[in-house]
Amino acid sequence: MRMYDIIVKKRDGGELTEEEIYFFIEGYTKGEIPDYQASALTMAIYFQGMSQKETATLTQAMVDSGETIDLSQIEGHIVDKHSTGGVGDKVTFIVGPLVASVGVPVAKMSGRGLGHTGGTLDKLESIEGLQIEMTKEQFINNVNQHKLAVAGQTGNLAPADKKLYALRDVTATVDSMPLIAGSIMSKKLASGADSIVLDVKTGSGAFMKSLEDSEALAREMVNIGNNLGRHTVAVISDMNQPLGYEVGNANEIKEAAQILQGKKVMDLRELSLEIAAHMTLLAEVFSSYEEAYQALEANLENGKAFNALRTLIEAQGGNVDMIDDLNKLPQAKYAVEVKADTDGFVKEIDAESIGVAAMYLGAGRATKDDEINHGVGITLHKKIGDKVTASEPLVTLHSDQEQPEASISKVKEAYTIADEKIEAPALIHKVIK
Amino acid sequence: MRMYDIIVKKRDGGELTEEEIYFFIEGYTKGEIPDYQASALTMAIYFQGMSQKETATLTQAMVDSGETIDLSQIEGHIVDKHSTGGVGDKVTFIVGPLVASVGVPVAKMSGRGLGHTGGTLDKLESIEGLQIEMTKEQFINNVNQHKLAVAGQTGNLAPADKKLYALRDVTATVDSMPLIAGSIMSKKLASGADSIVLDVKTGSGAFMKSLEDSEALAREMVNIGNNLGRHTVAVISDMNQPLGYEVGNANEIKEAAQILQGKKVMDLRELSLEIAAHMTLLAEVFSSYEEAYQALEANLENGKAFNALRTLIEAQGGNVDMIDDLNKLPQAKYAVEVKADTDGFVKEIDAESIGVAAMYLGAGRATKDDEINHGVGITLHKKIGDKVTASEPLVTLHSDQEQPEASISKVKEAYTIADEKIEAPALIHKVIK
Repeated sequence: MRMYDIIVKKRDGGELTEEEIYFFIEGYTKGEIPDYQASALTMAIYFQGMSQKETATLTQAMVDSGETIDLSQIEGHIVDKHSTGGVGDKVTFIVGPLVASVGVPVAKMSGRGLGHTGGTLDKLESIEGLQIEMTKEQFINNVNQHKLAVAGQTGNLAPADKKLYALRDVTATVDSMPLIAGSIMSKKLASGADSIVLDVKTGSGAFMKSLEDSEALAREMVNIGNNLGRHTVAVISDMNQPLGYEVGNANEIKEAAQILQGKKVMDLRELSLEIAAHMTLLAEVFSSYEEAYQALEANLENGKAFNALRTLIEAQGGNVDMIDDLNKLPQAKYAVEVKADTDGFVKEIDAESIGVAAMYLGAGRATKDDEINHGVGITLHKKIGDKVTASEPLVTLHSDQEQPEASISKVKEAYTIADEKIEAPALIHKVIK
Repeated sequence: MRMYDIIVKKRDGGELTEEEIYFFIEGYTKGEIPDYQASALTMAIYFQGMSQKETATLTQAMVDSGETIDLSQIEGHIVDKHSTGGVGDKVTFIVGPLVASVGVPVAKMSGRGLGHTGGTLDKLESIEGLQIEMTKEQFINNVNQHKLAVAGQTGNLAPADKKLYALRDVTATVDSMPLIAGSIMSKKLASGADSIVLDVKTGSGAFMKSLEDSEALAREMVNIGNNLGRHTVAVISDMNQPLGYEVGNANEIKEAAQILQGKKVMDLRELSLEIAAHMTLLAEVFSSYEEAYQALEANLENGKAFNALRTLIEAQGGNVDMIDDLNKLPQAKYAVEVKADTDGFVKEIDAESIGVAAMYLGAGRATKDDEINHGVGITLHKKIGDKVTASEPLVTLHSDQEQPEASISKVKEAYTIADEKIEAPALIHKVIK
């Protein structure tokens, strides 16, 4: 078998066999197949696509290129949750405790990565003392005992994906639906969950801007999961503006905690319940969506969901006072209001610009060595459809600088004010099973 | 400017600017742009194509990546000739002397390369003592004095093309019309001729199997030449069977010499006159195609064309006795006939299999270090449309082995005998100006 022939076959629109896909992925991981052949193949895939079967095989080959996490010692059906990423997305901190509160084990392994705000781990570390480094045994014990644990990802998961993604990133083949889907799913599958709920974001602040593309990606991922024996459901949710009202690290934890305490931040609460409902359905603890939804909603009201968050924090050594009194979370030195210039209605909030504004404040990492400032962030006061009056605040910047000019101008750039009343976009566009 | 953006632009079907093409070619030649980005771009070009303007710019950028040969000290209008390659193609040895015989300077620089038979230089070296290494001054003096010289290609011509071709060869992007055309033309343009006649082969034994593809390639190359200020004409000629009756090194020289002495091997003679006529027309020594053709045909009959070959051989130190008495050319030890199995008519002769049979005899090089055996080769006795009787010889193998089994079976594979009479394919399909 020769890599050259595999490139020709895909270039000419053929379907690669399992043997050919493994030959490529194994050879590439070992360095036997050079980058220039891999980039030619991925560009051919960009143009010719891959069948469902090819995409599932590629994903499995990438899983098999490295270690996989064995969670079989955890009691119960483990459901993982993954978001394709957006600004203000703190759903994980809500659905984790919420799902645990109805007895479904949540074994969350996360990375850090670059981004406008920190990753899941960085946000959690807003809580003093909280440890995310633990042995595999501790992790499994915690899940069995408390139904919930969050740990830093260890092990060499899907190294083929890491290597291939880095190559695609510099050769303009990231935007290939089967390759995106395979990349995401290979990491999820290697993480050992039994079922997976995907939160696929759509809109101006998402990786996929159009509903059509988001749906195509969702279908690819659901197909991969189901083809490889993991029940997978995708919720397509709106990212035409930040989710909820808080962007940053400590302030996202704060908003998540408020939802768990029953606060009605509607978009965030609704999406969290939707995702949690699908997770518990996959775990087969409820017999219908309605039953699941009601049970979960009840646990937001009766304190059980919030209690699951407290238990997590205590079990991992965190200072639970910070959650009991949210004012004890890290705070920035200054609160700087950014005001509207005119009267009108909010028409658009470019989520990416809000994310960049948060990063300028120090909430995220532009390079691997940057330090996260947990206290800084942005509180939105106005979302799409809201009426605004000139000189009313649009957002408050939580900043360690007195005049964070770059962030201020980014926020101004982000908001578009129109004369007529605008409808807020629908939050949940579609559920793909 | 970033290579990444250039890949994206071409991937999305955009037209690259002159600046972008030079950025790529210069950066790639210097090693500043890595292979993996170049292969992603060439695969994108494979799918999206290039405009005439892009193709001409790419070609000029590849010319500018290295040295160019200055032939301005040669008197008269220099016309170069290039064949896209086929089996039994000894047209260069005929048109060189023929065109020189009417006073048009022919300054031929050739390489060796791999192939079923040797290259132009290897074939010429069948003649004892003939030197193809000479200084630039000697080369120019020879052309000015005798109107004809053949030399080994020196200088670092179009290094970008060399590097890019090697990459395309292992990443399945050779078969891209603009890239093929640019590759051929960059070398021709760097060689310094004023005008170019291209012999574009079509058919089973050619790089381009269909007339449509051959015509597309011919048009691309003519466009490049004309866009870059060199009058270019392409003759599309048939390669559904070997050209003429001789394949090898010494025996191709022999057949060329026979044509120059007036022998009527019709396909070879006709194609040589056609190409020579266009060359002399581009050099503006005749006022019409008919006038050119008649003058050239006359020189095949009156000895002037043959005399030009003798002059070339003498000027470059070759033993002219070998041409005066063709039996003195290198000969193989054995003449092995391969006979027909059945009665019928020759329907097909797979030119490539004949080429491989000749290579097995030792006529060509499979790897760079192989030695050419000048005496071995193949004489065809039957061509498409010819009647054959069982046990009549199809070919004679000139071999240094008594029973060259691999070549015998390759020749048998090459011939298809049918019951009904077949028409020989047309030789000259089209002329593109």
